[in-house]
Amino acid sequence: MNPNILFDEYSTVRSRTLDLINPLGEADCCVQSLPESSPVKWHLGHVSWFFEAFILQHYEQTFKPFQPEFLTMFSSYNADNVPHPDPKRGLFTRPSLKATRDYGQNIDERMNSLSKKVAEDNIFEMITMLGIQHELQHQELMLADLKHLLSQNPMNPAYQPKTGPHAVPYVMPAPLTWHHYEAGIVEIGYAGEGFSYDNESPRHKQYLYPYQLASRLVTNGEYMRFIEEGGYDNPCHWFSEGWEWIKSNNCRHPLYWRHEGGEWKEFTLQGLVPLDFNLPALHMSFYEASAFAQWSDARLPTEAEWEYAASQQSFEGYLEDNNYFHPRHAITGEPGKIIQLYDHAWEWTQSSYSPYPGYNPKKPNRHMPKSDIWDIAVGEYNSESMVNQYVLRGGACITPRKRIRPSMRNFFPAKTRWQYSGIRLARNEACVD
Amino acid sequence: MNPNILFDEYSTVRSRTLDLINPLGEADCCVQSLPESSPVKWHLGHVSWFFEAFILQHYEQTFKPFQPEFLTMFSSYNADNVPHPDPKRGLFTRPSLKATRDYGQNIDERMNSLSKKVAEDNIFEMITMLGIQHELQHQELMLADLKHLLSQNPMNPAYQPKTGPHAVPYVMPAPLTWHHYEAGIVEIGYAGEGFSYDNESPRHKQYLYPYQLASRLVTNGEYMRFIEEGGYDNPCHWFSEGWEWIKSNNCRHPLYWRHEGGEWKEFTLQGLVPLDFNLPALHMSFYEASAFAQWSDARLPTEAEWEYAASQQSFEGYLEDNNYFHPRHAITGEPGKIIQLYDHAWEWTQSSYSPYPGYNPKKPNRHMPKSDIWDIAVGEYNSESMVNQYVLRGGACITPRKRIRPSMRNFFPAKTRWQYSGIRLARNEACVD
Amino acid sequence: MNPNILFDEYSTVRSRTLDLINPLGEADCCVQSLPESSPVKWHLGHVSWFFEAFILQHYEQTFKPFQPEFLTMFSSYNADNVPHPDPKRGLFTRPSLKATRDYGQNIDERMNSLSKKVAEDNIFEMITMLGIQHELQHQELMLADLKHLLSQNPMNPAYQPKTGPHAVPYVMPAPLTWHHYEAGIVEIGYAGEGFSYDNESPRHKQYLYPYQLASRLVTNGEYMRFIEEGGYDNPCHWFSEGWEWIKSNNCRHPLYWRHEGGEWKEFTLQGLVPLDFNLPALHMSFYEASAFAQWSDARLPTEAEWEYAASQQSFEGYLEDNNYFHPRHAITGEPGKIIQLYDHAWEWTQSSYSPYPGYNPKKPNRHMPKSDIWDIAVGEYNSESMVNQYVLRGGACITPRKRIRPSMRNFFPAKTRWQYSGIRLARNEACVD
Amino acid sequence: MNPNILFDEYSTVRSRTLDLINPLGEADCCVQSLPESSPVKWHLGHVSWFFEAFILQHYEQTFKPFQPEFLTMFSSYNADNVPHPDPKRGLFTRPSLKATRDYGQNIDERMNSLSKKVAEDNIFEMITMLGIQHELQHQELMLADLKHLLSQNPMNPAYQPKTGPHAVPYVMPAPLTWHHYEAGIVEIGYAGEGFSYDNESPRHKQYLYPYQLASRLVTNGEYMRFIEEGGYDNPCHWFSEGWEWIKSNNCRHPLYWRHEGGEWKEFTLQGLVPLDFNLPALHMSFYEASAFAQWSDARLPTEAEWEYAASQQSFEGYLEDNNYFHPRHAITGEPGKIIQLYDHAWEWTQSSYSPYPGYNPKKPNRHMPKSDIWDIAVGEYNSESMVNQYVLRGGACITPRKRIRPSMRNFFPAKTRWQYSGIRLARNEACVD
Repeated sequence: MNPNILFDEYSTVRSRTLDLINPLGEADCCVQSLPESSPVKWHLGHVSWFFEAFILQHYEQTFKPFQPEFLTMFSSYNADNVPHPDPKRGLFTRPSLKATRDYGQNIDERMNSLSKKVAEDNIFEMITMLGIQHELQHQELMLADLKHLLSQNPMNPAYQPKTGPHAVPYVMPAPLTWHHYEAGIVEIGYAGEGFSYDNESPRHKQYLYPYQLASRLVTNGEYMRFIEEGGYDNPCHWFSEGWEWIKSNNCRHPLYWRHEGGEWKEFTLQGLVPLDFNLPALHMSFYEASAFAQWSDARLPTEAEWEYAASQQSFEGYLEDNNYFHPRHAITGEPGKIIQLYDHAWEWTQSSYSPYPGYNPKKPNRHMPKSDIWDIAVGEYNSESMVNQYVLRGGACITPRKRIRPSMRNFFPAKTRWQYSGIRLARNEACVD
Repeated sequence: MNPNILFDEYSTVRSRTLDLINPLGEADCCVQSLPESSPVKWHLGHVSWFFEAFILQHYEQTFKPFQPEFLTMFSSYNADNVPHPDPKRGLFTRPSLKATRDYGQNIDERMNSLSKKVAEDNIFEMITMLGIQHELQHQELMLADLKHLLSQNPMNPAYQPKTGPHAVPYVMPAPLTWHHYEAGIVEIGYAGEGFSYDNESPRHKQYLYPYQLASRLVTNGEYMRFIEEGGYDNPCHWFSEGWEWIKSNNCRHPLYWRHEGGEWKEFTLQGLVPLDFNLPALHMSFYEASAFAQWSDARLPTEAEWEYAASQQSFEGYLEDNNYFHPRHAITGEPGKIIQLYDHAWEWTQSSYSPYPGYNPKKPNRHMPKSDIWDIAVGEYNSESMVNQYVLRGGACITPRKRIRPSMRNFFPAKTRWQYSGIRLARNEACVD
Repeated sequence: MNPNILFDEYSTVRSRTLDLINPLGEADCCVQSLPESSPVKWHLGHVSWFFEAFILQHYEQTFKPFQPEFLTMFSSYNADNVPHPDPKRGLFTRPSLKATRDYGQNIDERMNSLSKKVAEDNIFEMITMLGIQHELQHQELMLADLKHLLSQNPMNPAYQPKTGPHAVPYVMPAPLTWHHYEAGIVEIGYAGEGFSYDNESPRHKQYLYPYQLASRLVTNGEYMRFIEEGGYDNPCHWFSEGWEWIKSNNCRHPLYWRHEGGEWKEFTLQGLVPLDFNLPALHMSFYEASAFAQWSDARLPTEAEWEYAASQQSFEGYLEDNNYFHPRHAITGEPGKIIQLYDHAWEWTQSSYSPYPGYNPKKPNRHMPKSDIWDIAVGEYNSESMVNQYVLRGGACITPRKRIRPSMRNFFPAKTRWQYSGIRLARNEACVD
Repeated sequence: MNPNILFDEYSTVRSRTLDLINPLGEADCCVQSLPESSPVKWHLGHVSWFFEAFILQHYEQTFKPFQPEFLTMFSSYNADNVPHPDPKRGLFTRPSLKATRDYGQNIDERMNSLSKKVAEDNIFEMITMLGIQHELQHQELMLADLKHLLSQNPMNPAYQPKTGPHAVPYVMPAPLTWHHYEAGIVEIGYAGEGFSYDNESPRHKQYLYPYQLASRLVTNGEYMRFIEEGGYDNPCHWFSEGWEWIKSNNCRHPLYWRHEGGEWKEFTLQGLVPLDFNLPALHMSFYEASAFAQWSDARLPTEAEWEYAASQQSFEGYLEDNNYFHPRHAITGEPGKIIQLYDHAWEWTQSSYSPYPGYNPKKPNRHMPKSDIWDIAVGEYNSESMVNQYVLRGGACITPRKRIRPSMRNFFPAKTRWQYSGIRLARNEACVD
């Protein structure tokens, strides 16, 4: 790709990052409300750090870090090389938000100037593309992390004005129907020529038994019935680990639901709003999604089942960008199609996150020679997370459109609730009445 | 099956349970050394409880519990219905070991008398068979739990005399070779007519890519090289979660290895013995097994790869019982065969424990009508554990021979170390030099 | 003192230790139910260890440990020299109870033979006396620890037969009256010539303001009123730390009270018995004792107030030994005397455990020369515990009579509930209506 | 007092509060770095809340809260009435710093206008005075909390410029001498007519034995010798609880000391500076202070010993305000005087925080009638903290001068390190060589 075109793409994404931060104050950007989330400001510094650490450091003739401490403060690896979100990121009150923006601007300029110098260089292009996708991913994380932070405030502050979706009168969702898929060998994994993460490869065969997928996601109303019928009180629906977890965390309903003054409400990026029973249920843990499925005499799909079904449908219609980060009604679907694939909630699958057959894991040794930067850069996305996480497919209302494709594998631990995760049911063919 | 023949089988297994306990004192049988392990005495009461709760309670005309409290004390479900091993089991100093044996004897007699009355009754037979297998499983757990308990004692007490395997002079293991398996659709899952757990069904197709399996397990000597080359100090071999885990638990070597006076020793059921570098490495967590595999430029097999390979070989030779609960040398294997499949260590696979296609999970509602006892009884072995656990295949030196078969799925959480777990390497065909 | 007379005293105490263990099984003696308690068998080994480590090791001409490991297994100091009860003591299933008794018998014989050889030796006598008192203290701890262990068993096993106190019909306690004490300088601390711990010295002056003490302990009935009037729901009675503690530990009543089938019961060493509202309330934490006192418009006494009052009365009447380890009714007191000083419950004072003026703390360096054994031996009883503990005075129904005296300072952390601790109220003179 | 004069004092203090915040950014003010500390913005809101909740709410004719949520968000009691600092205070990114200042300004105006209306009203004056002292206390806490927060930042940000004390060349401290005090009955507790907390009353008699106090505080250099001689490796100097604490928290030196590149440095409000061996050692836990004292063959003073000695000296010289919040050299003291009493570090005493004889604890029931506001307001300063805390006397370099007086009782739990706490040694007369 022409480096200038690449830089245009870089700029577009960066500009959206800055737009997302715009409505926020300095404090909103600094604080961390969960050990596994990060402050907005850290996300902002981190997306620049990616380009400084993996590109500028290797391509600039006389590299000088913008600020030496930033190379560790904004790294995703802490001092002990533990590559997990660090609960102490929220303690970095300096650099200020402005100084962090300045850092970003400096990186932008250097990336711009480098783009003009670098001839077509495959590694440069690959890592820049990866950095752009990395930034898109962090745009999404930023919103999920921010939502959790704001939800901790008794004043229920809104990130977005309470207009838009909530102004629309509530409409009943399309009745749930089941779509049938035949048995046979299918191929899954990324097939195209654009960007994909290495965990989407290699494309490979899987044998599928006949199965059915629900035409749409589970709604708040449907989930409420599960609650009302004692779903959180009956261990027989739950994995034992899930049962222990909901009991010791005193969970009685989805993360952002609140029962106040006899009414159900939901905390959203537009603040506290009445719970809309017709919208897809959000912020499910894998435990809750699985328990709901079992209570429904159904199950979660495997990722192969999901990808095969999704790849039968065009996803063009999903590519226009969102303005409101809360699901909108999707009343009808085209006949023969399943809806809400990429625009409401990431959909839990029953598949644990593991390597595809033939996948060759990188070993991103932090001390390896600079020549191996691609392995280092991509390290974050591969095998080191492939234990005790479950795959989610599709995309959510906060997911940047450039991140969605049928083969995309999102993954989180089973207890995760602060992500935009929902439920699409599957069942075996034999279950059909 | 004829109920008398069934009762004979019951008696044979029960008698082995009592033999296993014989060398132990009352205190050895009462204490619990891990939240996830159980005291020997609890195992003893629990295997009788199974028959009382799932058979006698439903088949005896005038059922009267031997001791009402035993129905909860020896249940695998605690008062809050949390179906996990209860760290408080070790506090039950009463009933005494003798009273617990008396309980068993009473159950034996009632099972015997019931066997004589029950005509051929499919459910009766199925649950009795399940109870027998359940007892075999607990025989194995008892030994693993006991080993951990004894290992906590500064006097390094031995369960078995230090004769047998350790008297044999050390011999170099057969050099590791790689066995090749072709691509294609294979079938896995239980196929015969004997007993199997419901998680081994349904038998189903899977597409396999060409792969290779190591001819034997990883030895202590090979694992030692991993340690000496800094395996526990280099995050690039580890899942991030595994790295955090070994760091926060200060792990530097396998669970029962000890470095004392310049020498490596290993705690075994025969007490503390010199570490034998030629024996298979035991008591690996999934984290350690995976890290070793990555360091070796290999990987763990999937459970389908393992089962397919195992089912190509007869396992008749594995069916004679063990007298010593510590691996013995297996110097050579027959040409074209992989060895040590069922007699040294359970082998970690990279497959998370999840339902086979078409598997229909039971919902063992503890409050369901008595007519559903089969669902209740089998509940312990099905879907409620199908999250965050990894499958192990094969069998260990402590595994009763009636428990082994190619389709058997053992499973434990990734951090598990006190089980007899080892490493068989796999690799992709492409890796061949 | 004549060494033979000393050994007689040793034997008498040792013999009571063995009597106390008599009704127990091997498992009862091995298990530990609290991190801060110890198994009975450990107590048994530990009291012998004291004599082996502090006397035999220094006085025997050719000292050879009975079993080398016992010198660390039965020490009160763990490997890292952390001098707190070790939660792992309960894992020592070996030595067996019998082997531990054999250890004791061996020590008895060596002490006997040593007694015959040692001429009058002041240090020998002091340490032997200390060892005897140490054993008396452990007799008491054994019973408190055992009670907690048995309370964890759903079968509510009894240590003693349910005869004795509980057969006596319930009688109303004497009405609580207040005894008045004048202001002035008083002296507290041990004054006599018998044994005392070094924390009871030096005897010293304190200035006391006029105060009043309750004639008897708070009863279960009185404590029940506190509960019924919302004592556990109103933070204004509690230290903030205590309030947090009862909330996070879900405390709603004293440790061994149980509300079953509409009735209040109490777990005792005689098993589960109906709660006797006339008996002194037992097993109070300092938090609960203080909250009750504040709710009563009273306070806890200081240790100086308690000791001064106690030293005005003879305690001869308290010296006959107990047969039942549960409080008995004490219906009337002599006029002008306060009752229940040493025979029902240790009484919390508001005094934190700290050194008396002029107290010279030992520094028991574990590596110091053997010549300093007195400092080492006594180390356990002095300054190393003088932080975050509160003093209790008097004695309980399980306290050996040779342990009681007005100057005795017992001490435990504020959250302690498994000790036999109760409440005697005090108030300022000005409070009198 | 004339309400206008009172309001002048209010304004002066408020103005200092705002000055202290001036150098800080919005994020610096929002983040909380310890469960037991609070964000600067919370302190700012809280000091206004005090006046709104305890004065305006009761004195304004038509009270309307500035913002209803602030009455709980800025309260020191959380929703469950647990009166401890809440680790979630740092999650309140709204109100913004500006909005919190606006809140303060609104309260200022209402206090001003109320001052003009209220005739001399004893309760109004007492609570206003209390609110002013409360604000002074929070000024001090703000600086200690802020220091901890900034210390977590790898860039070592400075709150104050690195001029002032550090520019002065280092000078040896005056040699430590011992000041002698006679035995006898003394009186301690507040005696004057100005403001004091109720825990300083009633003034009362205590009997003191002859004792000695060190002429000055322990220096960094002296504390370094303790470290170099293995102070942190030898349990014999420590309370057992302290030993466990330093081991499990991996403490090897005072909180803000750092060993970097072979040099000792100290993090201060002026950033990272070379450790000055002549300055008083700061940020000691009670455990460390006690261990140092025992190692020195000395002890900590009791609070009565400290107060009696301090009250023998004028403290006029200490009343000029500090400009730099780091200790300055105090080279010489007047002959016969002990120095550094109020201007370097709060001095740990061996006295646990407990009520003076005759002290009548308030019971600040949060639901009590408004007429009892004094009890409510003062509740924070009395009995509810009187467990497991130790008294510190004097004052630190960050202590506002209006807070110092000989009878002032500061108190913190034994493990506290982030406060400005130091060591003054005491010893018994008999120790004199």
